[in-house]
This record gives sequence, structure tokens and C-alpha cells, in this order.
Amino acid sequence: MSKKYVYLFSEGFGLGKELLGGKGANLAEMTALGLPVPQGFIVSTEACAKYTKDGKVISKDVEKQIFDGIKAMEDMYGKRFGCDKDPLLVSVRSGSRASMPGMMDTILNLGLNEKAVEGLAKKTDNPRFAYDSYRRFIQMFSDVVMEQKKEVYDKILKGYKDQRGYKLDTDMTADDWKEIVKVFKANYLQNQGTPFPEDPKLQLLEATKAVFRSWDNERANIYRRDHNIPYDWGTAVNIQVMVFGNKGITSGTGVAFTRDPSTGEKKLYGEYLMNAQGEDVVAGIRTPNKIEELEKQNPAIYKEFVDTVTKLEKHYKDMQDTEFTIEDGKLYMLQTRSGKRTAKAAVKIAVDLVAEKMIDIPTALCMIDPKQLDALLHPTFIESELKKCKPCGSGLPASPGAACGTIVFNAKKAAKLKEEDPKCQLILVRHETSPEDIAGMKAAQGILTATGGMTSHAAVVARGMGTCCVCGCTQISELDEESGILIINGKTYREGDWLSLDGTAGNIYEGKLPTQIPDEITGDFATIMQWADKYRALNIRTNADTPHDTKQAIIFGAEGIGLCRTEHMFFHDILAFRQMIVAKTLEQRDIALAKLLPIQREDFKGIFKALKGMPATIRLLDPPLHEFVPHTDEDIQVLANEMKLEFSELKKTIDSLKEFNPMMGHRGCRLSITYPEIAIMQTRAIIEAAIEVVKETGINFVPEIMIPLIGEIKELKFLKEVVVKTADAVIRKNKSKLKYMVGTMIEIPRAALLADEIAKEAEFFSFGTNDLTQMTYGFSRDDSGKFLEDYIEKKIFEADPFTTLDQKGVGQLIAMSVKKGRKARKKLKIGICGEHGGDPASIMFFHREGLEYVSCSPFRVPIARLSAAQANIKFPRK
Amino acid sequence: MSKKYVYLFSEGFGLGKELLGGKGANLAEMTALGLPVPQGFIVSTEACAKYTKDGKVISKDVEKQIFDGIKAMEDMYGKRFGCDKDPLLVSVRSGSRASMPGMMDTILNLGLNEKAVEGLAKKTDNPRFAYDSYRRFIQMFSDVVMEQKKEVYDKILKGYKDQRGYKLDTDMTADDWKEIVKVFKANYLQNQGTPFPEDPKLQLLEATKAVFRSWDNERANIYRRDHNIPYDWGTAVNIQVMVFGNKGITSGTGVAFTRDPSTGEKKLYGEYLMNAQGEDVVAGIRTPNKIEELEKQNPAIYKEFVDTVTKLEKHYKDMQDTEFTIEDGKLYMLQTRSGKRTAKAAVKIAVDLVAEKMIDIPTALCMIDPKQLDALLHPTFIESELKKCKPCGSGLPASPGAACGTIVFNAKKAAKLKEEDPKCQLILVRHETSPEDIAGMKAAQGILTATGGMTSHAAVVARGMGTCCVCGCTQISELDEESGILIINGKTYREGDWLSLDGTAGNIYEGKLPTQIPDEITGDFATIMQWADKYRALNIRTNADTPHDTKQAIIFGAEGIGLCRTEHMFFHDILAFRQMIVAKTLEQRDIALAKLLPIQREDFKGIFKALKGMPATIRLLDPPLHEFVPHTDEDIQVLANEMKLEFSELKKTIDSLKEFNPMMGHRGCRLSITYPEIAIMQTRAIIEAAIEVVKETGINFVPEIMIPLIGEIKELKFLKEVVVKTADAVIRKNKSKLKYMVGTMIEIPRAALLADEIAKEAEFFSFGTNDLTQMTYGFSRDDSGKFLEDYIEKKIFEADPFTTLDQKGVGQLIAMSVKKGRKARKKLKIGICGEHGGDPASIMFFHREGLEYVSCSPFRVPIARLSAAQANIKFPRK
Repeated sequence: MSKKYVYLFSEGFGLGKELLGGKGANLAEMTALGLPVPQGFIVSTEACAKYTKDGKVISKDVEKQIFDGIKAMEDMYGKRFGCDKDPLLVSVRSGSRASMPGMMDTILNLGLNEKAVEGLAKKTDNPRFAYDSYRRFIQMFSDVVMEQKKEVYDKILKGYKDQRGYKLDTDMTADDWKEIVKVFKANYLQNQGTPFPEDPKLQLLEATKAVFRSWDNERANIYRRDHNIPYDWGTAVNIQVMVFGNKGITSGTGVAFTRDPSTGEKKLYGEYLMNAQGEDVVAGIRTPNKIEELEKQNPAIYKEFVDTVTKLEKHYKDMQDTEFTIEDGKLYMLQTRSGKRTAKAAVKIAVDLVAEKMIDIPTALCMIDPKQLDALLHPTFIESELKKCKPCGSGLPASPGAACGTIVFNAKKAAKLKEEDPKCQLILVRHETSPEDIAGMKAAQGILTATGGMTSHAAVVARGMGTCCVCGCTQISELDEESGILIINGKTYREGDWLSLDGTAGNIYEGKLPTQIPDEITGDFATIMQWADKYRALNIRTNADTPHDTKQAIIFGAEGIGLCRTEHMFFHDILAFRQMIVAKTLEQRDIALAKLLPIQREDFKGIFKALKGMPATIRLLDPPLHEFVPHTDEDIQVLANEMKLEFSELKKTIDSLKEFNPMMGHRGCRLSITYPEIAIMQTRAIIEAAIEVVKETGINFVPEIMIPLIGEIKELKFLKEVVVKTADAVIRKNKSKLKYMVGTMIEIPRAALLADEIAKEAEFFSFGTNDLTQMTYGFSRDDSGKFLEDYIEKKIFEADPFTTLDQKGVGQLIAMSVKKGRKARKKLKIGICGEHGGDPASIMFFHREGLEYVSCSPFRVPIARLSAAQANIKFPRK
Repeated sequence: MSKKYVYLFSEGFGLGKELLGGKGANLAEMTALGLPVPQGFIVSTEACAKYTKDGKVISKDVEKQIFDGIKAMEDMYGKRFGCDKDPLLVSVRSGSRASMPGMMDTILNLGLNEKAVEGLAKKTDNPRFAYDSYRRFIQMFSDVVMEQKKEVYDKILKGYKDQRGYKLDTDMTADDWKEIVKVFKANYLQNQGTPFPEDPKLQLLEATKAVFRSWDNERANIYRRDHNIPYDWGTAVNIQVMVFGNKGITSGTGVAFTRDPSTGEKKLYGEYLMNAQGEDVVAGIRTPNKIEELEKQNPAIYKEFVDTVTKLEKHYKDMQDTEFTIEDGKLYMLQTRSGKRTAKAAVKIAVDLVAEKMIDIPTALCMIDPKQLDALLHPTFIESELKKCKPCGSGLPASPGAACGTIVFNAKKAAKLKEEDPKCQLILVRHETSPEDIAGMKAAQGILTATGGMTSHAAVVARGMGTCCVCGCTQISELDEESGILIINGKTYREGDWLSLDGTAGNIYEGKLPTQIPDEITGDFATIMQWADKYRALNIRTNADTPHDTKQAIIFGAEGIGLCRTEHMFFHDILAFRQMIVAKTLEQRDIALAKLLPIQREDFKGIFKALKGMPATIRLLDPPLHEFVPHTDEDIQVLANEMKLEFSELKKTIDSLKEFNPMMGHRGCRLSITYPEIAIMQTRAIIEAAIEVVKETGINFVPEIMIPLIGEIKELKFLKEVVVKTADAVIRKNKSKLKYMVGTMIEIPRAALLADEIAKEAEFFSFGTNDLTQMTYGFSRDDSGKFLEDYIEKKIFEADPFTTLDQKGVGQLIAMSVKKGRKARKKLKIGICGEHGGDPASIMFFHREGLEYVSCSPFRVPIARLSAAQANIKFPRK
């Protein structure tokens, strides 16, 4: 017996979304619940996979099963496919495992041909309806199956109406529609070279193939990528007997949510139109009515509808998004699914459903997409205003939120403007940012860069700051920072012009759009966070390197710092730091470091105080020194003057710092091995600050000193000795009892491979997944932008491994490290501080691998809290 | 009972070099053989390790055992330590597991003090000898133990002699020496602040510590690094009763090899001096006599000596390097060891010993250091001439051999000069070379670069070509390629000046030094190679990308090509290649590729013909495109003119190719994923060439197409499809039956981690250990020069991982890949084509991991053949 690929709605209950797709599974389930569903059948996702595997062909056995399905419908409804008396008409819709609203294609009224349309006209005694349906079918079939844009037909129709002085479609008579059908078919023949297909079976096979194909269209591919939906899932096809909302004034169609999808309020929310088919509601030709009005128009139907959707919400235990049709006064349910909702609504609905005892807390926690929470923390544009505007360009949505400001091209200038006028609003526009730009980035409301990806410097820093950022805007054809000219999509903008950035969508708008300030963590959001904290096993720390960020993260629920970068601090006295860098002798370097010591110590004090005893992992200097020196001749001259050096000498020193591959160069622990005095100064600053803060506050505090970029145990041994010797001397001198830890980042593949050796010296591990991903894949974040697009387009990658952890490769190294590390040191503390620490799918992985904590930027802390709870609910730790 | 740390010579036989050091083990062995050895004892290498571990202190139990040893000597010889009648005197010498001649320190005549010197004078009735010995002891003790340079004392002695009109030390009387002892001791007191130690026990402990310390001196560290001797081996200390060659005219001392260490000829080779101590022979104050003369001077002693060393050679089954002393007409053997020898001698001795039936072939093969063979393949300077010159600078010995030529700073110019005068000799001097410089590099006799390490572009390419190269010469303080000025150690050289490079030692000489051409593979060398081939299990391929290199490698014994890089070929029509790179559309790119196709095809034909049916692995284009475009405005303008493009447009295109980290950028398979048309063109060229060569020669040939830089199975799947589709179409069109293979390089950590997946698509693996090492360690070859020196100095690394494979980390990935790969595809062919393919220690590893072949540059093929034989002799494959 051949494998089963086609399931009647009445057979499908309980077979699951994986096989039937979400829509199909729900139609089967509604059928089983006894709800008024027009019957039909589902061509399964397995058939889609087979179609792809067979070289985009529907095999004979699948074809046979489809027509068996048609036969079953003919028998059930007493209609015949293509019949000139009472023809069976069907809709053909896609339905994948995950809901992808509007992403794929739908065909209605399939089964009509020259004979059947006459049959329909006779049977319904409504030729106008029959020919209207036929022309809709031709239009949709052309669009979906033959890829001839619908607009061509719309134009023909408009011309026809204009000629006759018609305004609305309702002005069209049966004869008009009949005429239009002729014109449409002529157009079809002309464009396709073949007549419009008369055979309903052929129509059906072509439509089914088109739905399968639509899984691979551009819209669907982009949607999948944005929502991490694997390509190989495929889509099912739902073939359902038509009911008609366009049969006359006792017919109609509509959509409704069981709660308000934008606020979460518990009230029916939707629209309907009488005498219309589904697409009319969406198309906006006629203004639909609010769903409440149906109560006045047809209280019986309204009650039946309300009862049905209430039943559905109770059944699915979630807010439902439904479609219905009324045919000749009878209600039919066409679809139900869990409705998409805003972050605000998601939180409210989850809390309300618990209060209504419909679900328990774990269920509530699992029904919220953690990524959505982001939207609750950043300023946003007012949705209604946004809709009125067209973006003038777009880039990568690097750091969410909304920002308006005047353009500034120079970070120093931005900082200066902000100093002069603290209320000024600025958009910093750069090719790419560098650590030198930090002050300017802080001064700006939003950051726009021409190059760089989701994890470029601008993106990472902006997310860390919670500043809106659009990165890698390839539509920038010119960006002359010197003369202050920016050209996006051919239009020129100058310094001082207003721009608005939507960091959530990655859009750029001209002028100044109004924004709204989001709620803090209060109300339902706070409730969810408290629940999450109860259920999670992972601790959540933050990546922060200022007291401000630290406090912000604590408000968002951070339980310590997992990564305190020290490099930004050097910009407080960049001159002294540069003196350190270009020093020729140990003495010169020590003089510069002596200037830096008190500054670093104060920085650390501020952060440690903000932590109130919570732990902090401080990473010793990591980036290549070249990043900190001036690069233009002009700036070099300034430094030379300041330092009383010859220009040529200084330039030579700076040139000698240049590297072919700075990411794989003289950085991380390698710097401190060459210049141990840097590690000594930083250790002193950390330990002295900790001692003072403990003394001042009376709260115990254990700093964790982290040595970056270790690949070999002897590197760690060497530097640990330097750190311990320095720290112990400071502690002794201060007669303190301070405890501290020394550990390392695991970010070099070799460190992961030799984690057992390294754990002998390291008291803790923190996975630096950004670098680990770079090295494991052998491509750098900054350069991968050039080909990652091609990779995603060619389906070589389905996700950016810098955003969502590559569990097979990088994850294999992490799992190996955890195992080897704990074997060598039982109580080894293990966390992760790369960008992936704020990514839900990655957090699930870290939870399962038994890490103690994840650390992420402040604005991702709530996401991490919820993700960690979901992970522990799905895979409880013993 | 305390652990045993001290062994009498009479106890030590069979305990091995690991415990006793080479010298100690041999002294014990000679004692057991009944040879005339002054007795003594050995402080073991374990005592050295304990000394280091205890914080550079000799523990009480070791101290006690040392003095027990002294007691045993006192009893054996009836002398007393520090005695004023017949004092026991000893020598203290280092002796590590591996022979490190001249690298560590020695003290003679220890035990002398004010009383003992008088005792010695009386007992020997030779006060001159006694005080001469005493002053020697003071001098050596100061030098070795107190680190006060010997020269200070030499100067005092010279002043004393000059004052008295003495020419030779033999002019000095007993009273003179007595006086000198006073002056030396006064000087010691003044410099050290303490009197010269009188207590012989203190002298002995200090001397022992000094020997332990000498393990860590600079000379020793450099030697160890050059010879891959691990730091933790430590050294033993040999304490031996003194015999005196300086007792009078019937005493003497000498050194001799049992065969000529420079030619291998079977005849005694050495020198001796009567009435002298060991260091006099070395110091060159008196000219020593040839060993043969001893026969005339003292035929009995000579015969005894010849019999003894002949016995030793037969016993150790190798050429011996011996030291002896004659005291009052009696022969004593002070040392024997396997003698260091030149490559030529090594080969001849090994072959001769087999002929003499002293050893079997496997032993002969294992006694030659494979690395030495290099010297037999490259031109060399005439040793005697070289000795007369002082280098004017030095760098890394990147590619061995000798080269003389006039300086040229521009690769294009070098190529032009060579074209004009094929006999001209050139030294190309560059900051660093790039693929653009290839033609100039080929034109030059030698290459000198200011930056770049042992595996920099210049080094790799030069080794591949067999061209002499000195890299990373940090003594170059200025190198202005434009104005043609080079400053090394303060001295200026200009274009056209003669320089000579010694690529074996890394030295640079002014002027034109005479060179000699080495033997080809004939004679004993050929014999060794034939034997090696019989014993090895690994196949040896070569990295070659021209017919010339291919033929060269075949002469050296290569059995195919393991890596044919295709990028150099593009320089045959760099303009077409650049057109391909800057093409904006597929059409433009295809036009350029069509020009390149016939050129590549001809290149491949030449190589395939040279192979005569042996296999070749051809790697598709690998380096970032940016490497191929012009970089100066001037050169860009030239290209713009040639291509009829706007300068600004072309510059923009070129700028857009720049990458932050090109090593981790758009290269390897990533290029062909973006531009499949490149892979298509290259596949066509390979397959068409193969078909034509098979047709023309009638010899079957199976090209192996290798896709570089794979990290994800889908990359390979995508490109394999492109390659197979193209290849099959060409084969069908030509009605050929050509077979071909498609495989990949394993050079990205992720590929190694997922080798089981990748093996499903790949028909072969070739480890690209250069990149794999870079990614596993997270540092690039080009940049690591900046810190690797510090790493080696601080003992974090003991070897450069780009030269000798890191077996723990990178090796772990390789072992994992082999296992996973073979599990997924049983007959997976696995080789290695990185630089490590020519490194003996790495070859041993590859052999043990079960690889099929190693591939290395042509001039390393003989090294690889011998290394592979040694590997299989030591660890035979089942």
C-alpha cells in the first residue's frame, strides 16, 4: 500500500502540525469539535518534502490521493467537480507548521470553468455572483500559479468601470462580470500563450504545486529567516470546499481576534463585510464594519460566532485569530489559530489567562516569545504615525527602538554638541564605528552605519547602551564624513538634517517622527518577570562597563556582571593610554600606566558600588592596541605635539601596530604577556577598588578577574601568576581579607579542546561565543557581511551564527569544554558572555549544557530571564 | 629511605640518558666496558627537576648524596677533598638527555684552595702546574658560577705577561702563576664583595647549582628551541675526578672523531695538545697537532687510543666524538658521544655502517636527522670563505641555501631585469611579498623581507621554489622601496649593491660570497632514499603549481601532487583576472573568465603531463580577491585606462574588496558560492586538460578537485553540485571516460568537528594545517610574529606551531576528523598539504594517525621520505 499523503479534515485530529501544518491541524481539530467547518482535506508536509525531493513534481500516488479527496468531498456535498449543474468549488491554501501570516499563497473558487460557472449561476440563481467568482478565480490563479501580477487585472477592471462610469464593484452587473471574464481570459491567453485551463483537475494540481513552490518564494524565505523557521519543514496544502460570502446580502465574511492583539484587552476585535469574499476585507476597496456591529445586523449569527470563538479560545487556551464566512445566513468557520500580538498584549494575555485559570504559570511563560520583550524596553514610534510614512532607506535592525535627531558625521563633534546642548537630538552617521567613537555614540539618540553587520562594533555597543541603531545600510551610495554628505537611495542629506531611525525594523525615515516612551518593568511585565525568576535555573548576568549600564541592568533584573570590558574606560584619558601604547621603554609605559591606575580604580569603584555585593567578572584589556591610536596624519600630529614626539617617529610606531588580521593578532592575553605591566595595573585597580568599596559599603564583594583569549595553559599560568602576585600584595598592604577569583574566557577553539588542562588553572570559564564562533567558522564578524547574504539566499545557512549559536559546531566545542572542564575541576563556575547570551534559542542550549549563568547586554536581561525560565520548564534541571 | 638522586659511574650502566644525561650515561657505560675512565658520579636529571621545583634550591637529601659521592671518590683514589697533602680535585660538567655541545657550562679543578694548591704542588712536585690549575679554577668558577666574564681575567693575565715581555703561557713560571692567583682572588673579592670560597664543599654545591641554572641560559634556550628539546627535560651534573693534561710534557689532552664529521670518511679525525688542559685546545692560543701525529710522538698511547675509540664505535654502532687526557703517560677517556656531522657525512656514515655490517638498514635510516637533508639540495656558501666574513645582519632562516645578487626593491623590475639579462643575479628586498610579486620572486636568487615569519608568503613561496630566503629581518630600520634605500644595522645599501644571503642560517652578508653547487640525489643519498621508500607506509606528494616544480619534485621522489594552488596561474593574464574581479555583472565576469579558461587549461596540461599518470589534487581559487588588484592610485589608474573604466569607479570597487581580517573573509569556497562561475571555469579547465592529456599521452589520470575552506556540509554540497555538473558535461561532450574525484580541505575547526557530515559528500580530505593552526589558535601567521618571540622567550611556546604541528590542540582536531571521516566513508582518502607536511615530528604524527599521504614543497620531499620511513620503523603500521 502506498504511503498516506492526504488526510480528510475528519481524519486529521491529533496528527499534529508537523504533518498537517498549523491550518490543517486546526481545521481537523475544529471538525472534531463539531464546529461548522466547510469540509476538505490536507495534502501533508511530507508530500511537500516528496515534491521537492522528486525534483518539483507531484508523484502519481499523491495525485491519486488528492483526487480521492475530491471524490470524498463530491460524495459528502453531492456536488461534482467541474459539473455544469452544481459544481464543487474549493479553496487551496498553504499551511505550514509555524504560522506565517500572509507569507504564502491562496486560491479561491477553484473548479470553475465555462460549464461550471453556468452550473453555479443556475444552482444559486445568481449569475452575477457566479461570474464575479469566476473572474476572481482567474485573477488569483494567474497571480499565484502563473506569476502574472494581479494588478494587470485590476487595471483592466478599473478601465472597464471608468468607461461605464461605475464607482464600486457593486455597480457591476452579471453581464459586466461575464464580459470581464472574457477580457481576463483573452489577456491570460495573450500573456501565457495557452488558454485558461478548463480542466478542474489540472487547475487543482497546478494550484497545489504553486502552494508548494510558494514555500520557497522571497517573502517566505525572509519571514522564515526572521523567525528561525527551518526550510526543510515545508508546507501542507489545504483543499477546502468553498462557502461564499459574496452570494448576496445575507452572506458575508470577516476576521476576528478573541482579544485585542495590540493591547491584550479581553474583548472581541475584528471586522467583517457583507456580500464579499475574504480578500475584499483586506484589499480596502470597501471599508469593513467593526465586528460589534454584526450583533445589530444579525444577533443570532453574532451569538453563534461569539460562542464558537469563546469555545475555541477555551479549547486552545490562547487568544485566537479566526476567519469566518456567512453563506446565506449560515455561519462557517474557515480558520482558527493562535493570534499574533504585540509584546504588550502578549504579556497581558498571558497574565490574564492565568488569572482566568485557563492556564498555569509555566504555560503562560512559554506562550510569550522572549524576543518580543525588547519592544517593551525601548522608545518606539507611534504605530499610526509610522504607517503614514515611507522609509527613505533601510539596513539591519541592529539595536531596537526609535530615534530622531539631526545628522552628525563626527563622533567628537556629536559629543561636543551634546555638551553644549544636553537636550539636542543627534543621529550619528558613520561608515562604521570604532572604540574612539564611544563618546559620540553615547551622545547620539541613534546610530546609522553604512557597513557592518548585526554584531559589528556599532551594533554591539548600541545594543549594550540600549541605543537605537541601524547598521549596514547598503542603500547608502555615498557617505563623505568630511564634507558632511550622505546619499541614501539617490537622495542627499547633510549635517543638521533630521532623520528618524526605527532600530526594530531597520528602517530610516526623513524628518522627525513622533515617539512614545515605553512602560518600565511594572504591571503585567513585572508579573511575568517574577514568574520567570521562580522557574529558571540559569542565573542572568549582564555585560556592562559603566555604573549607568550596571544600574540599568539591575533594574531589568541582572544578578551581577558577566562581562565588564575595560577598554572603554581608557577613553577617559585616552592621551595617557596612547602614551602607554607608544611607549618605547618599560619606564615610559609605567609612567603612563600610573596615570591610568587611579582612573580605572574610580571606574571600577562606581561599578562595584552599583552592584551592591553582586558578582562581577572583569576582563583584562582585550582589543589590539591599534584600535586606540589616531589614524589620520592630522590626528597623529596632534598627539605628537601633545606628547612632544617627532611626527615621523610617532607615525612609525603607529604603523608598526597595524596588523593584517587584527582579530587574530596581538590582542587579549597576548598583550599582557608582552606587557605584563598592563595586567599589573589593571589588577591593582580592580583589587584596590574592591577593597575600598567593601570598606565603604560594608557589603562583601568577590571580583572575578578574567583573562581573555587563552589558547594554551601556559599563557594562563603566566598571567595568573602576575595577577595573583599583584592582587595578594595589594591585599596584604591593605590588611584586607578580600577574596577574588581568576578565570578565563573560552573563546579560542584550542582552549575548548584543552579545557581539562585549562581548568587546572582557571577558577571559572566564561564562553566568549563571538570569538569562538569566528574562529570555529574561520570568518570574522566584520567581513562575513559580504557573503552571509549569499549564504542565506542559497540556503547554506538558515541563520546568522553570530545571532543564534551554531549548536552543531560551536556548541560541540562548548559541550566538550564543559565536560572536560568540570572533570578537571568539579566546582568550576561556567557562564557565557558572548552576544548569544541574549538569544532565546542559544539560552536553551546553554541551560541544557549545564552552565551556571548567561550574561547579556542590559536591554536583553528580561529576554534572558524569560528564555531561561522556558528552558527549565521544557528541560527541567535535576 | 630517601629517593636516589646521585649515581656513581660504576652504578649507572643501563639506567639511560633520561635519568643520567647523555654524558653521564656514556661515562657509566665506558666504565662498565672497562675503559680507562676517571671515576666520578652523576647528579641526575631528577635532581635538576627537584631543584627547579623547590625554587632553585638544592635540598638537603640531594646535598647529602653528593657528598656521599665525594666520599666514595676519596676512598677509591685515596685522596681527600681540600687536603693539603694529596687533594681530590673534580670537574663539574653538565650533561643533558640530548647532546647540546658547547651550550652549557663546565668547571675544572674544583677542590683547590690555599691549602690544597700547596698539597697538589707538593704531591706532584710541580708548583707551576698546581698554581696554573688554581688560577684556571678561579677563572672558570667566576665565569660560570658568579657570571663574571672570563675576559676580565684574560685581560689581567695579558697585562701581566706584557709587563714582563712574555709571549706564551708557557713563559709563565710557578711564581708568576702564584702571583696571578693573588691578583685573580683580589679581583674576585673586589667584584663579588666576598672572598673566593675556600671550602671545597661550598665550591661544589655552587658549581652544581650553576650547572642546573645553565639549563636556562640564553644559549641553551636558543639551542633547545632550534632542536626541539623540551625545557622540562633538565640537565644532569657529572662530577668526575680530575686527571691532568697540563702536568708536563708527558701529559696532554685532545678530542677526536672516529670518522671525518664533515665528509664521513672512515679515518680518525682530531687534534691534541701536550701539557695542556681541555680549554686550551679550543681557545686557539696554541695550535694543536693533528691526531695522527700522536702516533709518532707516542705510538703506544696512540695505539691504545685507536683501539679504545674503535671499540667505542663498535659498541655504540655509530661514529663517536671523544675527549681524552694523557696524564703522566697514561690515557684516560673523558667522554664519548655520537658525533655531530654534516648532512653529507651523515648519509655516508649511515651507508658505510650498513656496508660494514655494523648496523641494519632501519637503524641507518633512523640515525639521520631528516631536516639535515635540506642542506644536500640547495647551493651553499663555501664554509671556509664564510668563516672569514661577519654577517651585516640576520633574520629568520626561512628557506635554506645560499644566494648572491644585486639588490632590487621592486618585483616587476626584478622580472624585467631578468628578462633583459637571464644571467643577472638579484636579491629581492621587500617589506613583505604578495602574490603579485611571484614573477619577481622567481627572477631573484634570494629574497629578503623586513617583516613576516617562517610561514609568511615570502617564506612559503620561497621554500616552494627552493629559493633562498631570509625573512623578518628586524635589523632593517628603514626600507624605502620607492627611493631604493635599505638600512640594516645602521648601514645603508642601495639598489644595485651586492648582498649575499645564507638562508640556512638566516644571515645577510655584504658583497658577493662564493657558493658551491650541491650534489643531486646520487650516491649515498640516493641509497638512503631508496631504503626509505622501502620502509615507509606514507605516500609522499608535493605542493606544486608549475610543470617546473612538478618535475623538480618528481626528481626528489614525489609520487603526485597533494596541493596544486591555482591562484598563481592567474598572473599569466592578470588583466583578465582583474576584469573578472571588478566585473559588475555576470556577463562581464563570464567574458573575463572565457579569456582565463584557455590559459588555465594550458597550465593544467603542463602539470598533468609532467605527472605521467601520478595523481594531482587541484585546489579551486582560495585567496581573497583583494590580493589580486592594484593598490596604489597610479596602478589603479593604469588598470582603469586598460579597462576603460572611470578611476573613481574602479577605486571604489577595489576599496569595497578590502577586508578587516582577510584571512577570515571572503575567500576559499565562499568566493565560489558568491561567484559559481569561477568554479565552473576552473572545473572546465581541469577536466578539459585532463581529457586532452590522457588522449595525447595514453596514460590514465584521475584529477582530484579540492574545494577549500569548507566549514559546513551545505557549502560542499552546493559547490560539489556545480563541479560535478560542469565536469560531467565536459566529459559527455568529449565522449571521454575520465574519472575524477571531488573532495575538500579540512582547515576550518568546524569542518574537523563535523567531519562525519562532510565525509558524506567529500571523496577525500586534505588537512590544510596552516589555516587549521591559525583558526585553532586564533592567531594569524602574518601577525603572530609580533608576539611569538615573547611567547618563546617566556616558555609559553617551545616551538612555533606553524613549523611543528601542535599535536595536543590541532592534532586533536585532526585525529577527530580522521576517525569521524572514516566512520562515515570507509574508503575516504586522507592526506595533509599544509607546511607541516615537510616537518619530521609532524610527519610522525600523521603516520600514526593513519593518513595516506603527506604533501610538501619539492625541496622537502626527501625529508618527508626519510621521516616517513623513520615513523614506520618506530611505529609500524599493521
